[in-house]
Amino acid sequence: MRATYLYGAGDVRVIDVPDPIVKEPTDAIVRVVRACVCGSDLHPYHSMPATPGGTSIGHEFVGIVEDAGAEVRSVKAGDFVIAPFAWSDGTCDFCREGLQTSCRHGGFWNSGEVGGGQAEAVRVPLADGTLVAVPVEENSPLVPSLLTLSDVYGTGYHAAIKAHVGPRTTVTVVGDGAVGLLAVLAARQLGAEQIILMGRHAARTDLGREFGASEVVAERGEEGIARVRELTGGDGTHVVLEAVGHMPAYDQAVGVVRAGGVISRVGVPQYDDAPVGFSSLFGPNITLTGGPAPARAYIETLLPGVLDGSVNPGRVFDLELPLAGIADAYRAMDNREALKVIIRP
Amino acid sequence: MRATYLYGAGDVRVIDVPDPIVKEPTDAIVRVVRACVCGSDLHPYHSMPATPGGTSIGHEFVGIVEDAGAEVRSVKAGDFVIAPFAWSDGTCDFCREGLQTSCRHGGFWNSGEVGGGQAEAVRVPLADGTLVAVPVEENSPLVPSLLTLSDVYGTGYHAAIKAHVGPRTTVTVVGDGAVGLLAVLAARQLGAEQIILMGRHAARTDLGREFGASEVVAERGEEGIARVRELTGGDGTHVVLEAVGHMPAYDQAVGVVRAGGVISRVGVPQYDDAPVGFSSLFGPNITLTGGPAPARAYIETLLPGVLDGSVNPGRVFDLELPLAGIADAYRAMDNREALKVIIRP
Repeated sequence: MRATYLYGAGDVRVIDVPDPIVKEPTDAIVRVVRACVCGSDLHPYHSMPATPGGTSIGHEFVGIVEDAGAEVRSVKAGDFVIAPFAWSDGTCDFCREGLQTSCRHGGFWNSGEVGGGQAEAVRVPLADGTLVAVPVEENSPLVPSLLTLSDVYGTGYHAAIKAHVGPRTTVTVVGDGAVGLLAVLAARQLGAEQIILMGRHAARTDLGREFGASEVVAERGEEGIARVRELTGGDGTHVVLEAVGHMPAYDQAVGVVRAGGVISRVGVPQYDDAPVGFSSLFGPNITLTGGPAPARAYIETLLPGVLDGSVNPGRVFDLELPLAGIADAYRAMDNREALKVIIRP
Repeated sequence: MRATYLYGAGDVRVIDVPDPIVKEPTDAIVRVVRACVCGSDLHPYHSMPATPGGTSIGHEFVGIVEDAGAEVRSVKAGDFVIAPFAWSDGTCDFCREGLQTSCRHGGFWNSGEVGGGQAEAVRVPLADGTLVAVPVEENSPLVPSLLTLSDVYGTGYHAAIKAHVGPRTTVTVVGDGAVGLLAVLAARQLGAEQIILMGRHAARTDLGREFGASEVVAERGEEGIARVRELTGGDGTHVVLEAVGHMPAYDQAVGVVRAGGVISRVGVPQYDDAPVGFSSLFGPNITLTGGPAPARAYIETLLPGVLDGSVNPGRVFDLELPLAGIADAYRAMDNREALKVIIRP
């Protein structure tokens, strides 16, 4: 089959690899119907050292089960399934607590003998714990929105859940990428009374407004902080959802959070150390939370709204390309010509 | 009157200052019955540059109201009162939310025209919001425990509350100072099922066991982390209450917290930046919380247990000295000859 490999910064190739097969009785083989490129894929796309063997890439996909091991009970050949960005057993204490990203027997795509989602097919370990079957056809118009449940919609929702967003919560979202926009949608679903979206790409922030942002702040740095403070009577917001991962976004978050509030990060941090001392977090009793979303935990909660059409998170996809053109997908997202690219194997 | 002033590192003096008087109609004047020295007082005691004018010090006291302004309603001359370590109006949105340390009109002792608690008397601004009258005599044996409600008991409790300690929570407490020991007591009151106290002063950790610690770990650094992991099946604890404020305590906390867990800091951080990236907090979805305790918020909750004798947080005091001997109190705490010194003006 064909699969996407990254060989170093900027070097994305689609190559031939052996078809995945059932190795464990708990495996399923999923033929990919749609995959996509994640903002977090751009981090290695920028920085990976040249690697002769390359590494498979992609962690978001939906597809059709083609084969399943003898012990798989919850899905069968022919089912349309959503694969979250981590695989997990669904039964350990972490999974039962809803932290499938820390599953005792789970893992992430593109590690060990498990491939990536930007491919024609994927071997899915622990299929019963990992996959969610959905009663739709593979040509359903809902497919793009279902695909966001693999990662970006669940990730935006995770940010809001970890921050305890609810009615009477005021929220700032830092970042107008797919995760930031879906954090806006999630905050709106959870009842937030004010949602300020910080971003400066009008096409994206316009979608953010449709998803529920009450204000957009295009300014950055000190100017952006001043603007959010101005919109909140000087106080900042109860919650900041940080969906970027770079240091300036962290500083922005610290600058606009209200005393006693929460900064919830879901942008993968591209830094190790950050200010957490008296003047940043401690003095005003700020909580810092977040991490990789247990996307699996949120699928049952978020699926009904997608199926009944009351939300349409798939609108974050603004370009579709065939798998053979995935290098263009990376380029388009990196140049910010595309918000998020959906891939058709 | 006599009041304690710090003139630089190691230079504590008791000097004559004018008696405090009612300046605002919302003020009360409190004659100090007992004050004490805080672990956080040792930070400027170690590092304050020589300052010719000195600065008043002390932020924990109980006493008798001697005078009150015309607008004061909740306390009157002769009342025994507890003063939390911040003064606050009790009516603004932050106070109503229980974050009196961020009160819109409040402040801290030893700032502006407000003196410190290690003195014969203190002018208390916003007396209605700040002071809590308690029906006891000034020679009551409960006075030491009531004094802990000024700061250290409320601070230990704040750590546990911010971390949502409850039944089925496993807890590590880092630090065997007064706040650490009272964090143990608070975690026990909130029902924690396992409480591991990290500390290496046997007299203190013995008191920690009486307050509810199920295990004591005397080792530090990597060895201490390994020991806590060993006691928790390799996982670490759901919650870490960090009651020190130095960087090694932060590293210790990161080392022993379970995936998905919470580090709650109440030791005033003596650092600005700390690890918060993928490998420390983000990857395992760790929450970092805490800050200066709104001690005022917890007095009504914690007072009944003190009054009925079911808890005795005043046991953290192991030395009593007169105000004239307060320099010895600082020395004794700094040398770790005393856990916490109560001061008798």
